[in-house]
Amino acid sequence: MEKVPGSLGTSASFSLRLGQTVFSSASLLFMSLGVEFYSYTAFCYLVTVMGLVIPWSFTLALVDGYCVIVGCTLRQRGILLIVSMGDWVLSFLSLAAACSTASVIDLLVVFQGSYCPSKFCSRYQLSASMAFICWFLVAASSLFNLWLLPSL
Amino acid sequence: MEKVPGSLGTSASFSLRLGQTVFSSASLLFMSLGVEFYSYTAFCYLVTVMGLVIPWSFTLALVDGYCVIVGCTLRQRGILLIVSMGDWVLSFLSLAAACSTASVIDLLVVFQGSYCPSKFCSRYQLSASMAFICWFLVAASSLFNLWLLPSL
Repeated sequence: MEKVPGSLGTSASFSLRLGQTVFSSASLLFMSLGVEFYSYTAFCYLVTVMGLVIPWSFTLALVDGYCVIVGCTLRQRGILLIVSMGDWVLSFLSLAAACSTASVIDLLVVFQGSYCPSKFCSRYQLSASMAFICWFLVAASSLFNLWLLPSL
Repeated sequence: MEKVPGSLGTSASFSLRLGQTVFSSASLLFMSLGVEFYSYTAFCYLVTVMGLVIPWSFTLALVDGYCVIVGCTLRQRGILLIVSMGDWVLSFLSLAAACSTASVIDLLVVFQGSYCPSKFCSRYQLSASMAFICWFLVAASSLFNLWLLPSL
């Protein structure tokens, strides 16, 4: 059985998970610190989803780090199925959150200049960008694990 | 090589493609007929994406129908890779469009009652729902084809 780079237990996967943790934390912090995010459904949804991605990615980063150091291989079909499905669901959720946030920001900027002071708006935009990067990394993890799955 | 139900050239795939064509057309029509959709970026984006999904799904529905009637099997790795990647990209695009539209509608309903008469708003909402169903079907097609791919 060949080793797919980026699948569970490899150093590439560890980097992906670290990236996910960093970018989802950044997105959460930009959105929630000092900004009235709870006025908008889409922003609350982004905060909720990022709050799900952070523990998931952090746990899997720990597992990957352990496997890289000890040298174990995680090739059980059940584990890989759960991880792959979790990544799959989270990638859709984070894309949905990022898109909702981006479209709401766009509407706020165009239609309601007074509702969106430039300081807040740039923070919202940064948060949405981080969420997009986070989605991309989660989708990559999902794809790598899904690729390995049928060969087990 | 086992036959994965829902992969290219099966009757399940034909049903999925028909569903995608119907729901994406419905979403496009609800959004574009008699409504000023071009005022909002998210709505224009939805119309663009649905305009991409319709020809893609319709063409593949024709291919699937032909294969079901004639009894051919499409198991070339290249073709399956292209179809699978196309579905993958379109599923992300249609999810993004559906979420953007839904969040903009939500904002319009809550904050700007006068901008969104109930007749228009219900049509926007119907369009977004159709787009979500369309996303679900495209993602299912993508998953089935991707599942078959590594075994070729």
